[in-house]
Amino acid sequence: MTDTLALVPSGIDTYRQPVVYMHEDCHVCRSEGFAAQTRVRIDLKDRWIIATLNVIARGAWLAVDEAALSSSAWAALGAQAGDRAAFSHPEPPASASVIRAKAYGNRLDQAGFAAIVSDTLDNRLSDLDLAAFVTACAGDRLDEAETVALTRAMRDAGQMLDWGDRAVLDKHCVGGLPGNRTTPIVVAIVAAAGHLVPKTSSRAITSPAGTADTMEVMAPVVLDGDALRRVVEAEGGCIVWGGGLALSPADDHFIRVERPLDFDSTGQLVASVLSKKAAAGATHVLIDMPVGPTAKVRSAGAAEALGARLSSVSEALGLNLALHISDGVAPVGRGIGPALEALDVLAVLRRMPEAPGDLRERALDLAGHLLDLAPNAVRGQGRDRAQSLLDSGAAEAKFMAICAAQGGFREPGSAAQRIEIRAPHAGQLSAVDNRRIARIAKLAGAPRQQRAGIRLLARIRDRVDKGQPLYELHAETPGELGYALAYAESQTDLFTLSEGVS
Amino acid sequence: MTDTLALVPSGIDTYRQPVVYMHEDCHVCRSEGFAAQTRVRIDLKDRWIIATLNVIARGAWLAVDEAALSSSAWAALGAQAGDRAAFSHPEPPASASVIRAKAYGNRLDQAGFAAIVSDTLDNRLSDLDLAAFVTACAGDRLDEAETVALTRAMRDAGQMLDWGDRAVLDKHCVGGLPGNRTTPIVVAIVAAAGHLVPKTSSRAITSPAGTADTMEVMAPVVLDGDALRRVVEAEGGCIVWGGGLALSPADDHFIRVERPLDFDSTGQLVASVLSKKAAAGATHVLIDMPVGPTAKVRSAGAAEALGARLSSVSEALGLNLALHISDGVAPVGRGIGPALEALDVLAVLRRMPEAPGDLRERALDLAGHLLDLAPNAVRGQGRDRAQSLLDSGAAEAKFMAICAAQGGFREPGSAAQRIEIRAPHAGQLSAVDNRRIARIAKLAGAPRQQRAGIRLLARIRDRVDKGQPLYELHAETPGELGYALAYAESQTDLFTLSEGVS
Repeated sequence: MTDTLALVPSGIDTYRQPVVYMHEDCHVCRSEGFAAQTRVRIDLKDRWIIATLNVIARGAWLAVDEAALSSSAWAALGAQAGDRAAFSHPEPPASASVIRAKAYGNRLDQAGFAAIVSDTLDNRLSDLDLAAFVTACAGDRLDEAETVALTRAMRDAGQMLDWGDRAVLDKHCVGGLPGNRTTPIVVAIVAAAGHLVPKTSSRAITSPAGTADTMEVMAPVVLDGDALRRVVEAEGGCIVWGGGLALSPADDHFIRVERPLDFDSTGQLVASVLSKKAAAGATHVLIDMPVGPTAKVRSAGAAEALGARLSSVSEALGLNLALHISDGVAPVGRGIGPALEALDVLAVLRRMPEAPGDLRERALDLAGHLLDLAPNAVRGQGRDRAQSLLDSGAAEAKFMAICAAQGGFREPGSAAQRIEIRAPHAGQLSAVDNRRIARIAKLAGAPRQQRAGIRLLARIRDRVDKGQPLYELHAETPGELGYALAYAESQTDLFTLSEGVS
Repeated sequence: MTDTLALVPSGIDTYRQPVVYMHEDCHVCRSEGFAAQTRVRIDLKDRWIIATLNVIARGAWLAVDEAALSSSAWAALGAQAGDRAAFSHPEPPASASVIRAKAYGNRLDQAGFAAIVSDTLDNRLSDLDLAAFVTACAGDRLDEAETVALTRAMRDAGQMLDWGDRAVLDKHCVGGLPGNRTTPIVVAIVAAAGHLVPKTSSRAITSPAGTADTMEVMAPVVLDGDALRRVVEAEGGCIVWGGGLALSPADDHFIRVERPLDFDSTGQLVASVLSKKAAAGATHVLIDMPVGPTAKVRSAGAAEALGARLSSVSEALGLNLALHISDGVAPVGRGIGPALEALDVLAVLRRMPEAPGDLRERALDLAGHLLDLAPNAVRGQGRDRAQSLLDSGAAEAKFMAICAAQGGFREPGSAAQRIEIRAPHAGQLSAVDNRRIARIAKLAGAPRQQRAGIRLLARIRDRVDKGQPLYELHAETPGELGYALAYAESQTDLFTLSEGVS
């Protein structure tokens, strides 16, 4: 292959999008007919990537016989300064026609989903292709058989954790309820009970914090498979970021486009959850599903439909699944945002007087349900067992041991910028809009800024006076605080304050 | 506003995607919480754009108090070196939730489409949002009322040409048939007949050449509204690129994402065609629809459905529409690609002996049908009139006059790289795969490379011997020639050569 150029780092961070910069007089551009936005295959030794081309004008910072790479492209190729790479047209991705078929409303089979997942992991599909795939699967556009096929394709395309023939417990919350950070508490209780609970969590997709984001405030969560195994063999449990383990790794690519689009898809949600559980080696899985008018799952009917899909796909994959429907009318705990939620988690584990009672009760319910789901459990005794493990301090000790095993515990900090938002009139707090309150937390910087978010100062059913603080906005920069505040002030009825006898 | 930075040109061509490059230590990034891929609003005097942020490492080519812009962003802002621009978070686009609703399968109303079109033109929507919109409208996912609403929204968001109360004739071909370049011939004939035919054409979306691409080989096609009016008032007709006129300008944004996705959508196709015709002031429109198993419209049933949608939407918009169903089993003419098709057009207008008879007959049929559609026409006489205008040289003279008025005629050139592909065995040529032959022409560089494409050396129903040339590949670079050839050689049955008596 004669079309080679010397690689140089561009120092340009394009996040995950691989970009290559080539000189407008570059002989490779000329001989291959490359122009801006062409997708280019770059081969270096045994690695290759597909990157999007940006063209650099003569007289700018690039030499004519060099190609500069974005930070993510440089890392993906494992390039060293001075390496010469080969440039060519990529093969057209086989799965583009599969995505097209789905967009037109055709059903896809196992091979179709496998092709999409494989091309996704090879970066053969552009972000536009991925956005089209996500859109074509939005809402209820994947049926049950397609969901099973997508789940299998995603599971099989990555690493799998093997725990022998031991029972492996796991839980997952279908999100949408700000502050509902039960996982660290549940894992601590269930591991303290002697079960195996190797929990892998995701970062936020459209919420102000994912469990991995919150846990990362308190301990490292980016562990490789060997490190995870050491933590779990020593402590029985862990709470780590699943994305670092290549469990169902295509999911992170889908999330990269789902996040800005802010789409839901029943099929992709089920495939995302269950492919990760299956790849992590789980045998018994509890799914928490908060239901409320502004939660992700808005009605009993929607919960039933999603639960039925989760159950049928679990069965097809050989997983034991239980569903836990919970109240989703308002945020849980006081904090919304990674560090603010971590503070709530620690208050519960430490049995502090100011610990949010709702978070504690939810965590105990879930831990109890999961203990009941375990093989050989005496049904109905889990809840009491969970409470005694929390009250005795065994769960706190287990949590601290897990944090230590993951690399060391750290106390959450506080954001630099804060402002209180007050009640416009007196009343009893009867509802909170989960979606808009989450949006404000995101505008304030969560989850990118760990300490940004919201601290609720009034809780559901509280009686508040006019001018009494409802919540506190936390941000790291004045710009973000102002942006979140401007949105918050433009909204009415975030908090429903009803008149009447308190 | 205090968050300002000095603008510098980056010299980076990102095609149409506006990108801003900021230093990793930049105070604006810090105070606003900007990170790679954040969408950033940039205000300069009375102009503003929304650009995607890339972050430049310290020590690279950008100063800490500067922001560099991609070529398209620089042009859109009208920036001058030394200008200071203000940076802020953009308002969340109102239409993102409308796109989401459509992805979930909800119907959109006039206000919804108007919001999408408006945010598209303001660059408030990212390419991912646009890809989601295009996907959500793919196939038959827009119903009739939605198609009317989208058409109106697109028409109303741009310029409109006003021709007073004169009848304005227009034609459009629903593409998919390589080489079917009748428009320049039809316009020349109809204008020679004394009618007003201000034709605006598009560039290729998924084909190897659009009419504007082909016409641009022979004359300038990027004219503003005043220049177009001068040409049409002088000569009765023109063939210009519609994208330069801001007629239904949102269409070009949609095309930018449709092109790489290669999606079809009945609703978007109808809205694209009719919004442009309505904005161009057309009153009488003839739609040519080639039907064949590998054409864009594959069956009589599909033609009927598309034709019905075109007719009903035309009626809602007050346009007189006629449909012309033609044979779409094989490419038309010999050339596929801008310059190669231009050569066919000129051969017909010049009545050269080697002029492709099929292109000539199709152009005469269409011109005749359009003459019959005109007000006060005596039905059935159009075809004879068209032929006499072509045979007399009146159409050629009119075409040359139009080219001169548009800025000057130029003869098409030939590509540097050529190779002949030969018949693997003897037989009679009974079918040609339009889609794959178009794909080969695109891999060879068409339409980006004007002179790239295919020249057919055997035509439908020809008897060929083993080893006889079937077609010639044309490319500007060895890389593109090789790429197209590799794909061509991997395909079987591009040309169906049937055994039997010739």
